[in-house]
Amino acid sequence: MDIKNILVTGRMYRDLERLALLDTKREYKFLPEAEVSPNHFDWADGYVAFKPTESFHFGGLRWVHALGAGVDAFLYNREWKKDVLLTRTVGSFGRKIGEYCLSYILADVQRHGDFRQYQSERHWLPSQQKLLQQLNIVIFGTGTIGMEVAKMLRTFGVTVYGISRSGASNCHFNRVLPITEVHPLLAQADWIINTLPLTQITERLFEKRLFSCMHGAGFINVGRGASVDENALLEAIERGQVRKAILDVFREEPLPSESPLWAHPNMAVTPHISAVTGLDEAMDGLLAVLREIDSGQERISYSVDVSRGY
Amino acid sequence: MDIKNILVTGRMYRDLERLALLDTKREYKFLPEAEVSPNHFDWADGYVAFKPTESFHFGGLRWVHALGAGVDAFLYNREWKKDVLLTRTVGSFGRKIGEYCLSYILADVQRHGDFRQYQSERHWLPSQQKLLQQLNIVIFGTGTIGMEVAKMLRTFGVTVYGISRSGASNCHFNRVLPITEVHPLLAQADWIINTLPLTQITERLFEKRLFSCMHGAGFINVGRGASVDENALLEAIERGQVRKAILDVFREEPLPSESPLWAHPNMAVTPHISAVTGLDEAMDGLLAVLREIDSGQERISYSVDVSRGY
Repeated sequence: MDIKNILVTGRMYRDLERLALLDTKREYKFLPEAEVSPNHFDWADGYVAFKPTESFHFGGLRWVHALGAGVDAFLYNREWKKDVLLTRTVGSFGRKIGEYCLSYILADVQRHGDFRQYQSERHWLPSQQKLLQQLNIVIFGTGTIGMEVAKMLRTFGVTVYGISRSGASNCHFNRVLPITEVHPLLAQADWIINTLPLTQITERLFEKRLFSCMHGAGFINVGRGASVDENALLEAIERGQVRKAILDVFREEPLPSESPLWAHPNMAVTPHISAVTGLDEAMDGLLAVLREIDSGQERISYSVDVSRGY
Repeated sequence: MDIKNILVTGRMYRDLERLALLDTKREYKFLPEAEVSPNHFDWADGYVAFKPTESFHFGGLRWVHALGAGVDAFLYNREWKKDVLLTRTVGSFGRKIGEYCLSYILADVQRHGDFRQYQSERHWLPSQQKLLQQLNIVIFGTGTIGMEVAKMLRTFGVTVYGISRSGASNCHFNRVLPITEVHPLLAQADWIINTLPLTQITERLFEKRLFSCMHGAGFINVGRGASVDENALLEAIERGQVRKAILDVFREEPLPSESPLWAHPNMAVTPHISAVTGLDEAMDGLLAVLREIDSGQERISYSVDVSRGY
């Protein structure tokens, strides 16, 4: 495949301008989203961004590269044009998301909130904390991110279950189960982590019935907001099925200021920061894909299976 | 050595009563501290407790076993009687202290406090967090606890320096330096962790001069409170030499309610909980030492070098 004209847009477009210096055999346009017009898609054969612009159409595109790990902004509720290659950035997202999850799990196990409260009351109240090795954690998603999170947790002796479509075994998990068999497992889980991409199958996966199987688990969402029925989650917290929720992604982002999620005492809200693409890894990922395309490699690394949606 | 009569006292004395069932060839007395009289030390040849009682004297003792990892309550400012064996509990303290330290370091790197604040303001303010692998951490103490903490941090790619008396190299640290060479290192440290036992050498080790070498490091004390000049620490925080302090141990415990440490915004105070001895590990440690004593083993595991004080 011969890529000649690449359109780069979105929040990193300025920082990525040095691409044109590193790769002089192609033409680049670097534009803010608002300045991208439908005509640009007739000029470009490559498109690099976090998501499609309002003006997006396939035009002459033969390759689309997502600067983030998730590609639902491109694929979800959109008919993809056959033969347009879609690639994504992987970088260190697994590690970043792992450290994000671990930070909240450890802060809970070590009871940071309780000790902060006691400190404010000048109250000396010792207690014995659990070790991570006493925990059971269920991770939805056994892809690059789920695996990295599992690997990190298992170095501490956590018992980690993976949930995937197929249930195919994977050495980074104590056990992997197909999603159809998840229900009995949820009752024993101390934490449940969602790392799944958004697809037709995972949309609103976490709803009333699933939450009602949990017995006081913590719930972390680092996948996509639309996989969670937010009202059902709030109800599950009220019922004690979910003890605490750590949410980094939301159905609507930024989370609207009127959302009840902001104010719930058992909810930590973070602004989609568990895996922010760094400039270096954006650049490295992009150049690696370009090299593979130029070399005529048949199977491009980090290409997306458009039919599965991830 | 033949141990016949064992006196068990302190907070666990009741829970340890089942020792008498497991070890029927010796006599045991299990007493609350207030009921231990000087006469008991003439009867006993073994003493098991977290610390000496008020009434403590060597009497007929030939063996003292500390239920905690630290033995300063026994050794510091006390002349130890020659030929009395002192042993201590090791158990999972290294792992417990490692998870305690990691929980506070990760909560800081992941900016839990900032995001909690933004959440309370319903403010969506994304940012990119560091990974642990970007940190330099200096651990004072390369014994069982310091090593375990180092090992844990290094699985995340942290650069870990150890500080010991000798500076002897140790595979769990990127580098070990003798305490005399620590000063230039402190300026580059993101975190400084004290795991040292209290001895004549480590008493008030962390004072004005040492803190003044730090450039905005976080400081964690899981060693002993008396190793820190608390006023110098408060001054170092005011000057920005120390950015944040996480203190689990104090010169006086419980920390007096009038202490200014309680109220400082850059200080987390926890009530000596980073490594609480669990009943099972107390029991296991004690029985292991007894087995070694009975077998006539020359060098008892977890025996303390009384001349060094740890």
